[in-house]
Amino acid sequence: MTPPPNTSTFGLSPGTLVYVGPEVAKDTTLKIVKYNEQYHEQHTIKQIKDCQISGDKPYISWLDVDGIHESGVIEAVGQLHNIHPLLLEDIMNTRQKPKIEFFNETYVFVSLKMLYWHDEMGEIEAEHVSFLLGSNYLISFQEKRTGDIFGPVLDRIKASVGKTRRNGADYLLFSLIDLIVDNYLEILERMSEELEELEGLILAGKHKDPISELYNLKRQLTLMRKYVLPLRDMLSQGLRENSKLIGKSTFPYFRDVHDHVINAIETIDSNRELLTGLIDIHYSTLSSRMNTVMKTLTIYSAVFMPLTFIVGIYGMNFDNMPELRQPNGYFYTLAGMAVLAGGLLIYFRRRGWM
Amino acid sequence: MTPPPNTSTFGLSPGTLVYVGPEVAKDTTLKIVKYNEQYHEQHTIKQIKDCQISGDKPYISWLDVDGIHESGVIEAVGQLHNIHPLLLEDIMNTRQKPKIEFFNETYVFVSLKMLYWHDEMGEIEAEHVSFLLGSNYLISFQEKRTGDIFGPVLDRIKASVGKTRRNGADYLLFSLIDLIVDNYLEILERMSEELEELEGLILAGKHKDPISELYNLKRQLTLMRKYVLPLRDMLSQGLRENSKLIGKSTFPYFRDVHDHVINAIETIDSNRELLTGLIDIHYSTLSSRMNTVMKTLTIYSAVFMPLTFIVGIYGMNFDNMPELRQPNGYFYTLAGMAVLAGGLLIYFRRRGWM
Amino acid sequence: MTPPPNTSTFGLSPGTLVYVGPEVAKDTTLKIVKYNEQYHEQHTIKQIKDCQISGDKPYISWLDVDGIHESGVIEAVGQLHNIHPLLLEDIMNTRQKPKIEFFNETYVFVSLKMLYWHDEMGEIEAEHVSFLLGSNYLISFQEKRTGDIFGPVLDRIKASVGKTRRNGADYLLFSLIDLIVDNYLEILERMSEELEELEGLILAGKHKDPISELYNLKRQLTLMRKYVLPLRDMLSQGLRENSKLIGKSTFPYFRDVHDHVINAIETIDSNRELLTGLIDIHYSTLSSRMNTVMKTLTIYSAVFMPLTFIVGIYGMNFDNMPELRQPNGYFYTLAGMAVLAGGLLIYFRRRGWM
Amino acid sequence: MTPPPNTSTFGLSPGTLVYVGPEVAKDTTLKIVKYNEQYHEQHTIKQIKDCQISGDKPYISWLDVDGIHESGVIEAVGQLHNIHPLLLEDIMNTRQKPKIEFFNETYVFVSLKMLYWHDEMGEIEAEHVSFLLGSNYLISFQEKRTGDIFGPVLDRIKASVGKTRRNGADYLLFSLIDLIVDNYLEILERMSEELEELEGLILAGKHKDPISELYNLKRQLTLMRKYVLPLRDMLSQGLRENSKLIGKSTFPYFRDVHDHVINAIETIDSNRELLTGLIDIHYSTLSSRMNTVMKTLTIYSAVFMPLTFIVGIYGMNFDNMPELRQPNGYFYTLAGMAVLAGGLLIYFRRRGWM
Amino acid sequence: MTPPPNTSTFGLSPGTLVYVGPEVAKDTTLKIVKYNEQYHEQHTIKQIKDCQISGDKPYISWLDVDGIHESGVIEAVGQLHNIHPLLLEDIMNTRQKPKIEFFNETYVFVSLKMLYWHDEMGEIEAEHVSFLLGSNYLISFQEKRTGDIFGPVLDRIKASVGKTRRNGADYLLFSLIDLIVDNYLEILERMSEELEELEGLILAGKHKDPISELYNLKRQLTLMRKYVLPLRDMLSQGLRENSKLIGKSTFPYFRDVHDHVINAIETIDSNRELLTGLIDIHYSTLSSRMNTVMKTLTIYSAVFMPLTFIVGIYGMNFDNMPELRQPNGYFYTLAGMAVLAGGLLIYFRRRGWM
Ligand SMILES: [Mg+2]
Ligand SMILES: [Mg+2]
Ligand SMILES: [Mg+2]
Ligand SMILES: [Mg+2]
Ligand SMILES: [Mg+2]
Ligand SMILES: [Mg+2]
Ligand SMILES: [Mg+2]
Ligand SMILES: [Mg+2]
Ligand SMILES: [Mg+2]
Ligand SMILES: [Mg+2]
Ligand SMILES: [Mg+2]
Ligand SMILES: [Mg+2]
Ligand SMILES: [Mg+2]
Ligand SMILES: [Mg+2]
Ligand SMILES: [Mg+2]
Ligand SMILES: [Mg+2]
Ligand SMILES: [Mg+2]
Ligand SMILES: [Mg+2]
Ligand SMILES: [Mg+2]
Ligand SMILES: [Mg+2]
Ligand SMILES: [Mg+2]
Ligand SMILES: [Mg+2]
Ligand SMILES: [Mg+2]
Ligand SMILES: [Mg+2]
Ligand SMILES: [Mg+2]
Ligand SMILES: [Mg+2]
Ligand SMILES: [Mg+2]
Ligand SMILES: [Mg+2]
Ligand SMILES: [Mg+2]
Ligand SMILES: [Mg+2]
Ligand SMILES: [Mg+2]
Repeated sequence: MTPPPNTSTFGLSPGTLVYVGPEVAKDTTLKIVKYNEQYHEQHTIKQIKDCQISGDKPYISWLDVDGIHESGVIEAVGQLHNIHPLLLEDIMNTRQKPKIEFFNETYVFVSLKMLYWHDEMGEIEAEHVSFLLGSNYLISFQEKRTGDIFGPVLDRIKASVGKTRRNGADYLLFSLIDLIVDNYLEILERMSEELEELEGLILAGKHKDPISELYNLKRQLTLMRKYVLPLRDMLSQGLRENSKLIGKSTFPYFRDVHDHVINAIETIDSNRELLTGLIDIHYSTLSSRMNTVMKTLTIYSAVFMPLTFIVGIYGMNFDNMPELRQPNGYFYTLAGMAVLAGGLLIYFRRRGWM
Repeated sequence: MTPPPNTSTFGLSPGTLVYVGPEVAKDTTLKIVKYNEQYHEQHTIKQIKDCQISGDKPYISWLDVDGIHESGVIEAVGQLHNIHPLLLEDIMNTRQKPKIEFFNETYVFVSLKMLYWHDEMGEIEAEHVSFLLGSNYLISFQEKRTGDIFGPVLDRIKASVGKTRRNGADYLLFSLIDLIVDNYLEILERMSEELEELEGLILAGKHKDPISELYNLKRQLTLMRKYVLPLRDMLSQGLRENSKLIGKSTFPYFRDVHDHVINAIETIDSNRELLTGLIDIHYSTLSSRMNTVMKTLTIYSAVFMPLTFIVGIYGMNFDNMPELRQPNGYFYTLAGMAVLAGGLLIYFRRRGWM
Repeated sequence: MTPPPNTSTFGLSPGTLVYVGPEVAKDTTLKIVKYNEQYHEQHTIKQIKDCQISGDKPYISWLDVDGIHESGVIEAVGQLHNIHPLLLEDIMNTRQKPKIEFFNETYVFVSLKMLYWHDEMGEIEAEHVSFLLGSNYLISFQEKRTGDIFGPVLDRIKASVGKTRRNGADYLLFSLIDLIVDNYLEILERMSEELEELEGLILAGKHKDPISELYNLKRQLTLMRKYVLPLRDMLSQGLRENSKLIGKSTFPYFRDVHDHVINAIETIDSNRELLTGLIDIHYSTLSSRMNTVMKTLTIYSAVFMPLTFIVGIYGMNFDNMPELRQPNGYFYTLAGMAVLAGGLLIYFRRRGWM
Repeated sequence: MTPPPNTSTFGLSPGTLVYVGPEVAKDTTLKIVKYNEQYHEQHTIKQIKDCQISGDKPYISWLDVDGIHESGVIEAVGQLHNIHPLLLEDIMNTRQKPKIEFFNETYVFVSLKMLYWHDEMGEIEAEHVSFLLGSNYLISFQEKRTGDIFGPVLDRIKASVGKTRRNGADYLLFSLIDLIVDNYLEILERMSEELEELEGLILAGKHKDPISELYNLKRQLTLMRKYVLPLRDMLSQGLRENSKLIGKSTFPYFRDVHDHVINAIETIDSNRELLTGLIDIHYSTLSSRMNTVMKTLTIYSAVFMPLTFIVGIYGMNFDNMPELRQPNGYFYTLAGMAVLAGGLLIYFRRRGWM
Repeated sequence: MTPPPNTSTFGLSPGTLVYVGPEVAKDTTLKIVKYNEQYHEQHTIKQIKDCQISGDKPYISWLDVDGIHESGVIEAVGQLHNIHPLLLEDIMNTRQKPKIEFFNETYVFVSLKMLYWHDEMGEIEAEHVSFLLGSNYLISFQEKRTGDIFGPVLDRIKASVGKTRRNGADYLLFSLIDLIVDNYLEILERMSEELEELEGLILAGKHKDPISELYNLKRQLTLMRKYVLPLRDMLSQGLRENSKLIGKSTFPYFRDVHDHVINAIETIDSNRELLTGLIDIHYSTLSSRMNTVMKTLTIYSAVFMPLTFIVGIYGMNFDNMPELRQPNGYFYTLAGMAVLAGGLLIYFRRRGWM
């Protein structure tokens, strides 16, 4: 579900910082991680002025801003690191679609969505995430939620597992994006399973009213597509653009994420097509059930209407009705009706209605 | 709703100024605003010849022409500022679609639509707005309506809030376009809410005939798309074109509006898709209701037709009908019919029709 | 309606001149107009050899060939002005789609369709029109019909109104194309009105069988799209191509027609979408009417079937039926049936069927 | 209908010559035509080794190979003229889609489909045709069928009619392609006629079950599109490519065929759209007929069910039924029922059901 | 069916080798083939360290790795031949979509899908196949399945049939891709046959519920399209890219496979369109059957309801009913009813309902 508008931004001066996402109770947390192949340090910031990092150090600096709902904090971080007001607006704007922007050799701005799949409601939730990549540092901004989405990368840096410690800030950026994209594939896997279950029920005709479920799944896929599709172009633009900030040796890694994004888009699209097919099957099932119902009704009517008419005839009270006086009239009539009913049933069976 | 044609332009000489929009009772108002970082002045024009502004002043000049239905006024303004007759035609032509045109380094012509959302009628109304950006001045043309759409920018200039006073005429143009585009997002927000409400009713099966409402919303979205889509290309063209009139420092601002326009288009498209889905759900609901109705009818018929036939048999007047003479014939018959009815009901329940 | 084939062209040598349009009774008329800012002359040609015009005169020469069904005439005009046989074929081929072709600096060939809207039949008719623009002259070819489609331009030249007299042959070409395109917008206006009327009837559920009307309108729009769409690319090609024959000062005028063509295409497309929406609404109306009909039937059956069964019971002729002997049996039965019927009606009202 | 597979080519070495088209009883025929403006000769080849032609002669040589089902013959022709084995495979592969390939200045390979319209079956049949254009010669390959598709061009060469005798081998290639494309338009004309006939019947509601006919027509158009569409790109590629083998003076001719191909594609597309519209109309007719049927049933039921109930009441055998004893009870009852029936009919008429 | 997720890869370090395909019981087999025009040798590897091949030999070396489920084996092969960890990940990732990647002049990486058609289940199965082409060698990776998909090429090398022995490693790569693509066409042939059979049944109205079959076929075609479509772009990219590893003389061969891939895609698309058409026909058949059923019901009701009403009248027990006393009243009534029934039947026949 698109988030409801908390506030209107109409008529405000451009660059005015306004948070428009869901309400958040918690405070913003700031964390700094510094590392190179030999060294590793990580601590939480107490005072905003301590959060300043710079690229002229012998180690990589990563500042993670967890919470984008306090405009004061974002503005302060922005001023300390010289970030354009419009970018700060984009960082806080949870409705901003994924994009990449190159600011000469100063920094690269990347904005995308971390996704969560809420199984019970069958709904996708998006968390707005932004990155600012400098020559030797990275600043990440995320919405304040329970848990840390960057946990696995932090753990790998701490434990010195994988290549992150041996590489630059661009590889760190890749690792974080890779984490987010891997999560897309994870969610798609779970949606695929749900879809397959639904498919089984529909094909077996065991689901009475699957339309609203199918509709919701389709809606979630549409929403997901809206978040994932821009990533494809962002990544190819990132690979095309000749920025010094992203080293040639990191290119194969970005190409790999690009591959996964394309995989995700294709899975989304084929699932959407599947859903359309299932809706069609459901309608077809409805139609043929209606056919069965109508045939049943028609056969009942076709058999009993003539019979009821016949018994109606012999229920008339005319003085002169010779059949009524015949000793076996009643039995002949019963026999005649049995023959008629049988004949009609044979006729309908021959027409394929039974 | 597309405006009805007030007049035919067929056979007229090209460049003939004809107003084709809705009839307007009021006169045209002309207003001049002059400002720089230190200075600010604003006054209404009484005589058309006083409206001439030029770019060789130490301040920014902004001429706002409020009303485009008087061809005499438009022609006079055009002559004083040396505007091409075909542009004057475009300025007055409320059916003109949004576009940008570059006239060397003399001026940039921009035409777009201010939109209004009429909640009661559920309809969008478009106001035709044009801009002429010169080296140090801006001329804006708008249809005469109640209220001034440029109010917030005028207020910011007066109060010296935001960056407008510190920047050039290109930033003023940006501010006005930004205002209009922010308003698109506002309207889309309101349409989204209406759509969500409708969605709730339809999914709960509580809306009896939502088709015409869905149809109208789709139509308004289609109309809106027609107005918003050209803006995307206009803005990218504006950023590509290397005009001196739009300074490099204003580029990030135009890129920002471009972002918002893309957001608007995407919201329009996903809402349209949503609407199609809701129409499908509505049809599905209709179909399954029909199924329920037909099943009810068939079960009634299937139960009562045989029973009515049986009572018809014992209503016949044959002389020789042994059952009628049996002391308990009536009670046996009632019991038999009860068994038959019960058996049929069990059968239909087993088939899942009840 | 696509015109029926009068003749087969299969197996003919390429460049063989064959007229394939509707049969024409009248003869071809040739008219020459010569003008510049001071001078104006206009006369009808009696003998084909007198129709030769050339570009090395101090005035603009315009030859209008009214009728393309006589291959002899077309061939003669072609030889006198050195026109490629394949172009002559295109001039006569009423099925030729709109196109532009540049022959170095010798001439520009333009072919398009004048459209007529026949209100009574609700049908569009196309007239095949071709232009040959030389350095200082223009040759136009049109199908022989009642009236002259170029009348307004001829009148403006005669009366020296507008800019035609002050400009070159390229401006004349523009004026004629502008006339034709303005006429497209005129027709679309009339179709829009018809569509709106139909929309009102359908939304109010007052049109019994609108499908064939909607279908015809859609067909006419499709046909019109086929004629108008190529014009867009023709005109942008014309503006891209760097031909000396079309002067830079005429460019804004061609850009203006281009604008109008795009407007026309967009109106066509949104009308087509509207039509699709109306078809959907009509189906929905049909469906919900069917629902109403079926509910009525089911309620009748559900109420009267049990009642008829009950009266059938007491119409049986068993000797021993104690109820029949009760003095008030009849009245109790009537009362019981009234209660049953009322209960059923309340039940159906509660289910929302009434 | 796509031809059934006569043979599997899986696992064969690439370039292995296999004929996969329909079985052919007749032998391959080879014919050589030699001509220039003064000279003309034409004879049938008896022995394959005599079929060699070359480009260093003062006349144009055209070798027509009629039959592509004998791999021995094709291989021999290929070896004598130095044709790449993969091209020979394409020449024999009746499933090969139309294409053009340039082999430096040695030769140009063109492959397309001659189409036949079988009126009785309403089906299109494709004949696989290939051309090899050298500097002064042309080799054509066609499937063996009754009659010669190149007859009209042969006749024109013989009779020295048209421009073929005065032009090079590239003009000959054009003439043959032109023949094939003109034939497409011919077939489309005939399909259009069939479609119009069908349209008339459907709009008048006189065709009981047009779906399978509409479906077949749509299928044939889809098939035809598959054959014609690649021609468009082939021809534009041919005009773009700067091959010496196709002279600049032949360019207008190829542009002309290109025009006709685009015409054909547009006719195919608009016919397909028409067909979709007709299918919709047919469904609408079905729906509104169903509505009429259901209304009839409902009115019958609504009128007779109450009446039958009333007569059932007075058919009951209660001892005490005062109405039965009234002298005019019967007549009052009849009158009451007439009033009830009339009232119901008026009610249904008012609701618009009759 | 998309394979179920055996394992989650979320949070793993990029380049971690994880097998996600269906479980495999068998061990990986490694086979080396060495050949040139004179020489041929082929043996199975026992120890992984013996599998190293290199390009500086006077013969072509081909290493076939049959089985990609053991990460240890893949990692070892990768280290011996210096393959980028991300490529090893792609080789093992059965969900990787087809792609080509150029690593300077070191090697070319190609990944695609071998397809199997399981007739009984009507399902396609994909085997993930990758190639690594070096200057004089080729490494192929395939999933472990029963049988060897590369058998025919191995046999041709052994028997020295065809051109493989005379050409380089690039021709070997072509041969293997050609094998896989030929197999696509084979599968499409079989699906086409199934479709034609289904079409026959549906057009003849003999298939009761074809929807789920049609749906499955459409799904398989969609799946197949997903595997085949990327091949088209891969191959054109391969032909565009100017790699020394693919010689100019092999280009015509790759162009030929490209042709076949396009053929396959077109067949897939036209079959999908066919399927949509058949679904429509099926719905139409359902609809017109429903119409027939409803007409039958309505005619029965329309005939018997009035008759049953009439006999009901004369079954009433009023004391004074003159008709009942008439000696021939009964016979007149029977005659009257016969006339009424006949009239109704004639009326319905005239309306075209019978
Ligand atoms: Mg919202
Ligand atoms: Mg704003
Ligand atoms: Mg922004
Ligand atoms: Mg977070
Ligand atoms: Mg990854
Ligand atoms: Mg209008
Ligand atoms: Mg109108
Ligand atoms: Mg005009
Ligand atoms: Mg204009
Ligand atoms: Mg206004
Ligand atoms: Mg804004
Ligand atoms: Mg909302
Ligand atoms: Mg025709
Ligand atoms: Mg011809
Ligand atoms: Mg032509
Ligand atoms: Mg005319
Ligand atoms: Mg105009
Ligand atoms: Mg629909
Ligand atoms: Mg086949
Ligand atoms: Mg077949
Ligand atoms: Mg092969
Ligand atoms: Mg081939
Ligand atoms: Mg032939
Ligand atoms: Mg032709
Ligand atoms: Mg026709
Ligand atoms: Mg799965
Ligand atoms: Mg990973
Ligand atoms: Mg990868
Ligand atoms: Mg294998
Ligand atoms: Mg092959
Ligand atoms: Mg459909």
